[in-house]
Amino acid sequence: MRKVDPDKHDARVRQILDAARACFAEKGFHQTSTAAICARAGMSPGNLFHYFSSKQAIIAAIVDGERRDVAEYFSSAMQAADLLGEILAFMDMILALAADKTFAGLALEIVAEATRDPEIGARVSRNDVELRSALQALITAAEERGQVGRALPSADAATWIATLIDGIFSRVGIDPDFSPKAHSSTLRLMITRMLCADAA
Amino acid sequence: MRKVDPDKHDARVRQILDAARACFAEKGFHQTSTAAICARAGMSPGNLFHYFSSKQAIIAAIVDGERRDVAEYFSSAMQAADLLGEILAFMDMILALAADKTFAGLALEIVAEATRDPEIGARVSRNDVELRSALQALITAAEERGQVGRALPSADAATWIATLIDGIFSRVGIDPDFSPKAHSSTLRLMITRMLCADAA
Repeated sequence: MRKVDPDKHDARVRQILDAARACFAEKGFHQTSTAAICARAGMSPGNLFHYFSSKQAIIAAIVDGERRDVAEYFSSAMQAADLLGEILAFMDMILALAADKTFAGLALEIVAEATRDPEIGARVSRNDVELRSALQALITAAEERGQVGRALPSADAATWIATLIDGIFSRVGIDPDFSPKAHSSTLRLMITRMLCADAA
Repeated sequence: MRKVDPDKHDARVRQILDAARACFAEKGFHQTSTAAICARAGMSPGNLFHYFSSKQAIIAAIVDGERRDVAEYFSSAMQAADLLGEILAFMDMILALAADKTFAGLALEIVAEATRDPEIGARVSRNDVELRSALQALITAAEERGQVGRALPSADAATWIATLIDGIFSRVGIDPDFSPKAHSSTLRLMITRMLCADAA
């Protein structure tokens, strides 16, 4: 039996996922073949299937990767002193991701596919539930410190911040003149007003 | 030559567009055939092609129909005394449309397709530019009457209201528990805070 080098394995997986992200963002899931992903990753189909059993499994791994990134981000944000500042910094990170054409194209594709493919839909919903829970925990902790007001229930505030995030990615697809990073100060003002109009 | 009854013609066009909207929302543009639209509309392919030359032409007519609806809505809203009230009423109408599964599914499909099909993309962008212009005109007029503040430039406020609208339709696709109409008071509070925190 061949020995598996875990570092080499992880590097191969990343290489496949990067190639798949680029293909999916450009052409969409349905119009991307595993052959196209192999070509972009510079590996043979046999080699790719050693790591992923199907295109569906690659999409699942991409969505699960975003889940891990969000969990790590908020676990670190909860340790900060200025929790409103962490929420605003998170929104700046979202604007930076939306400015990345591959990331934004892929985000739109995932949402569209989630409405049609129940397995992807379930994964996307789970990520969304976890994102809103993490935002809500941050807002609740910020309330307790008097950093944000209490008029807007924290669950609703979290839902509407998530809605703004969804909207930012749609906007990139709809409005060719929308430059996400240029809107940082406006978005910060909006979120601050939304959360703090009644702060102590 | 056959005489054309304009009322009958318009009724047929509506019948085709309604059938197409339902098919597109359920299956997406690519997975919907003109044969499926004909079957749903209860007419023969020959009859359908008398009204629309292609599936693409049907999609274009749907997007153009939304453009007319928005123009009519804002032309009437500009006549009102309470312009902030008109903006909030418009958002309630958006929540009602988002609660309509066919409308919401179609909206997501159109945005996803706009990123890939330049002709649909151009039509969607035109609608979006007109929606933001109409919102901006309403906000500017509201500023002049002291009904909203001036800290947020009206073009930015319009862009972010449009972003919230995009987000509402995405949310319906992502979060099966999101009930748009239940969020009316939260959305009204958010928009009011966003526009009025510095109102006279």
